[in-house]
Amino acid sequence: MAYYIGVDIGGTNIACGVVNDSCEVISRSKIKTNSIGNSLEYNDVLKVIKSAITSACEEAKINVNDAKSIGVGSPGTCNSESGVVENCNNLRFDNSPIRDDLEKEFKIPVYLDNDANAAAYGEFVSGAAKGAKNAVVITLGTGVGAGIIIDGKIYRGSNFAGGEIGHTVIAVDGAQCSCGRRGCFEAYSSATGLVRMTLKAGEENPKSIINDIIKEDGRCSARTAYKAMKAGDPVGKAVTDEYVKYLACGITNVINIFQPEVLCIGGGVCNEGEILLKPLKEAVAKQIYSKNSARNTEIVICSLGNDAGIIGAAMLFKS
Amino acid sequence: MAYYIGVDIGGTNIACGVVNDSCEVISRSKIKTNSIGNSLEYNDVLKVIKSAITSACEEAKINVNDAKSIGVGSPGTCNSESGVVENCNNLRFDNSPIRDDLEKEFKIPVYLDNDANAAAYGEFVSGAAKGAKNAVVITLGTGVGAGIIIDGKIYRGSNFAGGEIGHTVIAVDGAQCSCGRRGCFEAYSSATGLVRMTLKAGEENPKSIINDIIKEDGRCSARTAYKAMKAGDPVGKAVTDEYVKYLACGITNVINIFQPEVLCIGGGVCNEGEILLKPLKEAVAKQIYSKNSARNTEIVICSLGNDAGIIGAAMLFKS
Repeated sequence: MAYYIGVDIGGTNIACGVVNDSCEVISRSKIKTNSIGNSLEYNDVLKVIKSAITSACEEAKINVNDAKSIGVGSPGTCNSESGVVENCNNLRFDNSPIRDDLEKEFKIPVYLDNDANAAAYGEFVSGAAKGAKNAVVITLGTGVGAGIIIDGKIYRGSNFAGGEIGHTVIAVDGAQCSCGRRGCFEAYSSATGLVRMTLKAGEENPKSIINDIIKEDGRCSARTAYKAMKAGDPVGKAVTDEYVKYLACGITNVINIFQPEVLCIGGGVCNEGEILLKPLKEAVAKQIYSKNSARNTEIVICSLGNDAGIIGAAMLFKS
Repeated sequence: MAYYIGVDIGGTNIACGVVNDSCEVISRSKIKTNSIGNSLEYNDVLKVIKSAITSACEEAKINVNDAKSIGVGSPGTCNSESGVVENCNNLRFDNSPIRDDLEKEFKIPVYLDNDANAAAYGEFVSGAAKGAKNAVVITLGTGVGAGIIIDGKIYRGSNFAGGEIGHTVIAVDGAQCSCGRRGCFEAYSSATGLVRMTLKAGEENPKSIINDIIKEDGRCSARTAYKAMKAGDPVGKAVTDEYVKYLACGITNVINIFQPEVLCIGGGVCNEGEILLKPLKEAVAKQIYSKNSARNTEIVICSLGNDAGIIGAAMLFKS
C-alpha cells in the first residue's frame, strides 16, 4: 500500500490527511491557521503546515518520507509548474516557494495547486465526478469556488489564475462583489449572497418567520430562508426561488460553455439536498442551449465534503 | 506540397478553399446555400458542397483526391467523432452523416466540426492566436460565435455542444436572446445587439445624427453608432460606450474562466480597429480577477477574416 499526503490550506484551518491508493483518508490532522498568531505570514503558516503533516503521519503510524508525495492546495494563484504561490488575498503568501520549502524539509516530491482545483480534483478522482472526462465542480461557500477538469486534467489557464467561475458577471451593474466587479455569480450564489437576500427579505417583510428564525438562531445563515420555506412561509419560498434562479443562471452559463458530463455543486447550502437540486435541475433544463442533445450534463451534489480538498491535494501528483 | 480542402457552410454561402501546407488558401469557390432552392434540406445542401469542392479543386488544378483530406465546418452540433451533424437550427441538417457521405464521394478522409470551432482553429493554426497553447476566439456577427482552444486542441464539450459563450447570461432578466434566455452576451455584443442599441438611442434622441446616418445609408448597421461617434455626436458616443461596457463584461468573464494567452475578437464591428480595441482593453484590465498577474491575456483582433473558417476546416485533420 502506498501513501500520499494531502494538505488543504484554508483561512481558518490547515487540514492534512494521509491518503491511501484507494483514495481513502486514513488519518487526519487539523490546526487553526492563526494558532501561532494572526500575522498569517508565509513562514509562520509554513511551520503550521509542517506540524500538520507530521501529526497526520504520526497518527497514520508512518514516517513522512514513507509517503510517495505531498500535495498542497492553497488559496490564491498557485503556479503548479514552479510550485510557488504567486498571489494570495487571504494569506500573506505572495511569491512563496512552498514546494521547494517542503521538499527541503521532507525529502519527498511536493505538488502545489489552488485549493478549489484540488477539491475539484478530489471529486474527480474519487467523488461525484469520478469517471468523467470533463467535469466542473462548484463550491457554494463564503464565496463561489470552482475547479475545471478537462480531459482528466485540472484546467489552470495560462497564468494559473483560471477557473474563477465565481467571478463571472451574471447581472451587469448588480450586487457588489468582493472582487470589485458588480453582479458576479458569487455575489448571488454564495452562502453570503443567500444570507444577503434573506436579510433583505426579512427587513422588507417584518411579519415573515424569517425574522423569528434569525432571532432564535442568533444569526441569519444560508439555512434561514430554507427553514422558513419548509415551515410554509411564502417569503422564505420567494427567497429560495430567487436564489435558485441566480444559481441556475450561472450553472447554465457553465454548461453552455463546457458541456461537461458532470457538474458537481458542493458547500453547506447543498445540505438541502433535493429541495435545492430538483428546482435547480428544472430551471437549468429549461435554459440550456443543448436542449436537443441526447447527452446533457448531469448536475449532482459533491460527495466528499471537506475531504475533497485533502484527497485532491494528495492525488495532485497525477493531475 | 500537400493540399487540404476546407469547407465553410454558412446560412448564406458555402465557401470552399484549397489550402496548402503553409495554411495559404490557393483557390476558392463560393456558392449561395439556397442556389438550388430554399428547402435547405441536407441532400440538396450536400450537392452544393460537392460542387463547391469540385470547383475549388478545378481552380487549383488538382483532383479532389490529390488532396490529403477534406474538413467541413458546419453550423450546429457537430459530432467530430462520428462525423454527423446532430442538430442544426439554421439548416435542415439533423442527424446528417456528412463525413461518411463525402468520403463515399471523394475517397479521401473527411473531418467535421462546428463552424465557430473551425474558424477558431484557423486563427490558432495561422492567424491571431498562432503559437498560443490556450486561446479563445469570439466572433461578433449576427450572433456571437466562439471557439475554445485548450492545450492546442479544440474544446468541444462532452456532447460536442460546448463553446456557446454567446449564450451565457451577463444581464439576468435582460434583452431577449434568440436562444430563449434573457440577457445573453450575444444579445448585447453581437452586431444585432449593437444595432438594437443604436436604433433605440436614435428613437430616444431624434436630433442625434444617428437618424441622419440611418436615412443616408438606408439602414442601421453596426457601423452607424461608430460613424456618429466619430462625427462628434454624444449620443453615438454613449451607444458605443454602452456596447463596449457589455462586450468588456462578457470578455472579462471569459478571461476569468480561461485565462488564455490570447483572446481574439473578429466580425464586422472589429473593422473599427483601435477605436473599439483601446477602450475595450482598458475596461477589461480594470475588471479582471488576475490584475496582479504578470501574464494577462492579450486581446487582439482576428487576422484571417472569412478565410479563418476555410483554413481551420482544412486543418481539422490535426485538431
